[in-house]
Amino acid sequence: MTPTGISLDAAKLLKQIHELGTVGQGAAQDGRTRIALTDAEKAGRDLLVRWMRELDLDIRVDRVGNIFGILPAASDSAGVQPLMMGSHIDTVRNAGALDGCYGVLAGLAVVRAYRDAGIRPPRAIAVGAFTNEEGVRYQPDMMGSLVHAGGMAVQAALDTMGVDGTRLGDELARIGYAGDMEPGVLVPREYIELHIEQGPLLEAEGRLIGVVENLQGISWQKVTITGVANHAGTTPTRLRHDAGYAAAACIAYLREQVAGAVPGTTLATTGSLRFEPDVINVIPRKATFTVDLRDPDENRLQAAERRFADFLVALAAREGVAVETERLVRFQPVAFAPNLVARIEAAAERRGLPHMRMTSGAGHDAQMMARIAPSAMIFVPSREGISHNPREHTDDEQLILGAQVLLDVVQDCLAAH
Amino acid sequence: MTPTGISLDAAKLLKQIHELGTVGQGAAQDGRTRIALTDAEKAGRDLLVRWMRELDLDIRVDRVGNIFGILPAASDSAGVQPLMMGSHIDTVRNAGALDGCYGVLAGLAVVRAYRDAGIRPPRAIAVGAFTNEEGVRYQPDMMGSLVHAGGMAVQAALDTMGVDGTRLGDELARIGYAGDMEPGVLVPREYIELHIEQGPLLEAEGRLIGVVENLQGISWQKVTITGVANHAGTTPTRLRHDAGYAAAACIAYLREQVAGAVPGTTLATTGSLRFEPDVINVIPRKATFTVDLRDPDENRLQAAERRFADFLVALAAREGVAVETERLVRFQPVAFAPNLVARIEAAAERRGLPHMRMTSGAGHDAQMMARIAPSAMIFVPSREGISHNPREHTDDEQLILGAQVLLDVVQDCLAAH
Repeated sequence: MTPTGISLDAAKLLKQIHELGTVGQGAAQDGRTRIALTDAEKAGRDLLVRWMRELDLDIRVDRVGNIFGILPAASDSAGVQPLMMGSHIDTVRNAGALDGCYGVLAGLAVVRAYRDAGIRPPRAIAVGAFTNEEGVRYQPDMMGSLVHAGGMAVQAALDTMGVDGTRLGDELARIGYAGDMEPGVLVPREYIELHIEQGPLLEAEGRLIGVVENLQGISWQKVTITGVANHAGTTPTRLRHDAGYAAAACIAYLREQVAGAVPGTTLATTGSLRFEPDVINVIPRKATFTVDLRDPDENRLQAAERRFADFLVALAAREGVAVETERLVRFQPVAFAPNLVARIEAAAERRGLPHMRMTSGAGHDAQMMARIAPSAMIFVPSREGISHNPREHTDDEQLILGAQVLLDVVQDCLAAH
Repeated sequence: MTPTGISLDAAKLLKQIHELGTVGQGAAQDGRTRIALTDAEKAGRDLLVRWMRELDLDIRVDRVGNIFGILPAASDSAGVQPLMMGSHIDTVRNAGALDGCYGVLAGLAVVRAYRDAGIRPPRAIAVGAFTNEEGVRYQPDMMGSLVHAGGMAVQAALDTMGVDGTRLGDELARIGYAGDMEPGVLVPREYIELHIEQGPLLEAEGRLIGVVENLQGISWQKVTITGVANHAGTTPTRLRHDAGYAAAACIAYLREQVAGAVPGTTLATTGSLRFEPDVINVIPRKATFTVDLRDPDENRLQAAERRFADFLVALAAREGVAVETERLVRFQPVAFAPNLVARIEAAAERRGLPHMRMTSGAGHDAQMMARIAPSAMIFVPSREGISHNPREHTDDEQLILGAQVLLDVVQDCLAAH
């Protein structure tokens, strides 16, 4: 029971997380699969809408299928912007139960706390579930929030063709979630997203609450190095044009010279690498690899890209290889609203919960919402940093404390305005 | 015309190289494929034997199918060891016309020079074509010479199962080359193998004759590094156990710290590398790669292996990864007979041919023969270092000069004894 008389029904929140987590579970797998706009995801949407109805929320579905449940304000709030919480309920293949769903259902728990206390908030409170955050079937990911924030035209989203050859708009109509609201009509005064960390930092640091102050910029490149295939036994070192060594030198350079030692600085990852011909005694003719650079600071991210580009030029000259790079993805970093971040930090502090400011390493709907409204995120720990996996786990107590901080922040925001 | 009146029929040698090179040529490919003990290789053997018959040589086939054509000595040479030249006529898939065949046919050319001059040598001269040098179908490679040198039991060789499920002994009988001579009966006083370099050094140095004084030791390992797969965006650098980075660090270390700058010192190659799961935004859980170390000096080769092993231990501790290594191949270096090497060098010098002492980077039958007889090799240039490829090429003039040096060395050896 908070001092205001508004309190969280922790058991109900955990029960709903569990119940939504059973939707899309097959017999053969531990995890659940609710890929955007499939029958399984429709079942998840239906359950969410049923729970919104139980709370007697005003339910709106927009043209890209974003679902909003709105608790009206105490008095006529025409012209007054709502507070919005949200996330997504679509999943990757064989997923955990928490990614996205936690934020949506904790949003419902906050609304339920108001309902249970019989209190109408001074401004409307909206809970959003955005379409196709994961981007498994339709690219790009975070599509629903991107459209909502005006970053992608509705028609372009509806015309998106999936990896299975389906058209997004057709699938949306088929499952009955092609709403009539124009996306972006609902512009909140603030957007708050509660999410599992999906990384190891909170656990490693022994903290319960991550106060997310920004979200990393992302730079993805594909690099192709072409050298000359030659016999490993007969080609002296100085006559080699070894595409494999050149790729290895890049990966070592990125990690040892570009990546920062301190969390919240540059991250550099090569997740994929292929050699050709990939034979033990033949110097690789070709190496193809990916470079994933992330940094919460745009200047530092650009500096990392520049340093790597310079390294490639010098390497190509030194080893006598040709280098081609292809840009795959580029997002600028997002700074969350300092005022909201400070409220989250203060809420954790008041409850005596170990907390830390941190950077979101992954992309989230909050980064799209930040284009149109002051936004911020709250993280709770992910055991071993695991996500996108049935082993994704956060302790029940941690889930409850995260939702409690969310409720506190919502009350704080509503009291302030 | 050499001072002794014994001269090489250059045109005939080139014609035979060309003709043997057509055996196993398909319509669809530039190269020829005569994999050991296939029908195509039988056709090559039949042609070789026909040419040996034309020279009225004493033809012997041993139990593993090694073929020897022997030009008898001028007088009864019972108890006197022959001089032997040789190489192989089996090929890899889609091969050039020179690898192996050049040495065998140049041997026949030397014998032909004696026949054409009507001169019987003071000792018998044998020309050998060893079974399965390439090891494409049956492992190990250089099998015929290995058995001849006593390094592998005849029965073990015959019982070898091929990658196509065939038994070597059965295939040998099927093509009619299961001879009755016991392998190793023919122990020469010296073994000389003329071969294309299959590397770029002679061309790069502008030399015509490679005086091969030794053959590198070979150390092949497979290394498996196991780390932890994690999200590329949410896992801080210091919490990573990145199997991909660890593999890259190994490859860079091998090239930058272990490989020698000077030809004839340590070579280090990673030809094959695989990441798992091999996804752009996932830190690799597992990296599997090969390490090919070569050095003509056994102490230096062992030192390279030790330094790499030490590096792996330190790396495993630093990155928090597990490392497993599996030895795939280990051959000690072979030093060729200094006396023979000096004779080759002197012969090139006498003819005014630019020459250089060098190390064989690849394996050859000569390394097996060196176990039982003083042995050496003569190399001629390979254009661009290319071999095991239809683009394998040595200029006709270079092929002739190499055979001329071989003839000179044979005459020199026979005159000395």
